[in-house]
Amino acid sequence: MGYSPNPYAGFLRHHKSKTIALIAPELTNNYFIQAISGAESVAQEKDYHLLIYCTNDEFAKEESILKHLQNGRVDGVIMSLSTATQSYQHLNDLIQSGIPIVFFDRICHEIETAKITTDDFTSGFNATEHLIQNGCKDIAYLSISENLSIDNKRKQGYLEALNKHNIEAPASRIIKCTVDEKANFKKIKQLFQSDKIPDGIFASIEKLALTTYYVCNELNINIPKDTKVICFSNLRTAPLLNPSLTTITQPAYEMGKQAAAILFKNLDKKRSLIGNENIILKSELIVRDSTKK
Amino acid sequence: MGYSPNPYAGFLRHHKSKTIALIAPELTNNYFIQAISGAESVAQEKDYHLLIYCTNDEFAKEESILKHLQNGRVDGVIMSLSTATQSYQHLNDLIQSGIPIVFFDRICHEIETAKITTDDFTSGFNATEHLIQNGCKDIAYLSISENLSIDNKRKQGYLEALNKHNIEAPASRIIKCTVDEKANFKKIKQLFQSDKIPDGIFASIEKLALTTYYVCNELNINIPKDTKVICFSNLRTAPLLNPSLTTITQPAYEMGKQAAAILFKNLDKKRSLIGNENIILKSELIVRDSTKK
Repeated sequence: MGYSPNPYAGFLRHHKSKTIALIAPELTNNYFIQAISGAESVAQEKDYHLLIYCTNDEFAKEESILKHLQNGRVDGVIMSLSTATQSYQHLNDLIQSGIPIVFFDRICHEIETAKITTDDFTSGFNATEHLIQNGCKDIAYLSISENLSIDNKRKQGYLEALNKHNIEAPASRIIKCTVDEKANFKKIKQLFQSDKIPDGIFASIEKLALTTYYVCNELNINIPKDTKVICFSNLRTAPLLNPSLTTITQPAYEMGKQAAAILFKNLDKKRSLIGNENIILKSELIVRDSTKK
Repeated sequence: MGYSPNPYAGFLRHHKSKTIALIAPELTNNYFIQAISGAESVAQEKDYHLLIYCTNDEFAKEESILKHLQNGRVDGVIMSLSTATQSYQHLNDLIQSGIPIVFFDRICHEIETAKITTDDFTSGFNATEHLIQNGCKDIAYLSISENLSIDNKRKQGYLEALNKHNIEAPASRIIKCTVDEKANFKKIKQLFQSDKIPDGIFASIEKLALTTYYVCNELNINIPKDTKVICFSNLRTAPLLNPSLTTITQPAYEMGKQAAAILFKNLDKKRSLIGNENIILKSELIVRDSTKK
């Protein structure tokens, strides 16, 4: 029989696993749940199984999951990067092993493949202009990670809207948050304990808007009277919050669906290298009470 | 070489996949996200991967996932049943193929194995008594599925508390909801459009409490003045809702952790048949404004 270095891997290379994986940085965020649901609808049509992996926004976990997938357990991957990811060798390694990746939302520009995002710059611009039109003159931006392309685009939109309306944008109004929720609470509390509190908050992700609500509750700051709040969010309970939360809502289900559709298009053609393609879907501004004049 | 009926399956029977699966009926429910997180913490310690599967509360999907897992893709399974599951052959088949199952929350009494639940009867009793103590005399129970053991236990607790306080429990106050959210909205709306609206709502699961909020918003019914609302929930935004929502909160993280710990204890001993064991953890009543006197 001779020596076979890895019969298992060899076997799998010639057989389809009929399974794809979706890798998300967090599951407490309704955006990802809706994207999963969209991807799953396509997988089901194709009679494929969808495995869900969560990186908890940790780079080491993301690396470990991708390594785990190299053995051919799945035919392809749909993923959103963790906020901590700054190197891309693990992504290249997976693609080199013959397993294609399609990115959605938290994409990696440095890898050639298909990428599904929303119009983050325009939405960031519109969100900020909405605050300005409702009377805000001193708007803080809550950033989640400088590593993330989507965060940078949202911030660029924010800066551009301030610029258009001749509003100064001091660096101190860009609050660098992280995945450490307690530290974020402290930072946002400090912001509202200063002599001059911002009259508007633009949170790059939902979690930071909720932390702002908790801080304002604690400090007896009235939303929207004292400060208005807007954020990117697919939160189901946004209309039921006190006050109801104005959101920029991404077409999460559609994004998951399109990511899966592109992956299957390439799997059907037995292509593991997917050509570069940027698909940009529109987000929607849903005005509620948290930004009321 | 002769004929080998299934070398792939044979190979896997002798090798550990270093992977376990968690099967949940839905992911939009924060209870399951927290349970996943608890199970994952144990899997990580054991240097195992955790695969997440979602049945969307569909029996056919649950069957298909379990069949898919029979090929040895995972070493063991932690699961919560779909609300539609009424037969158990697929569960027995998986166990017979050498892959043990541990149940949590939506358990199956008919299968011999370990089962992690909360004190659903006592919590249902306490929730109902809390409403009675805050002045409710006409409490409706929103059921999600008669197939679910946990739903029946919560309902039994509700009935027992009414009985203790000599409050009649007409069958018309037990509202049979399903996974069809639009139909639930209609049913709950009907309840609040009758001549005499209930002065208390006990929702067996969070989703039904949120639907009650939407119905009350639409019909201008004030919570808690006109009707008080309590439900089983691990909703992160419960304190931020208008009004903040009184909940019975399950130790979801701990339940996921214990389910995984028991599974690994048996995997370590190479046991695929797990002895019957009922582990019951305590839920916590967290009083907020939705049940205020």
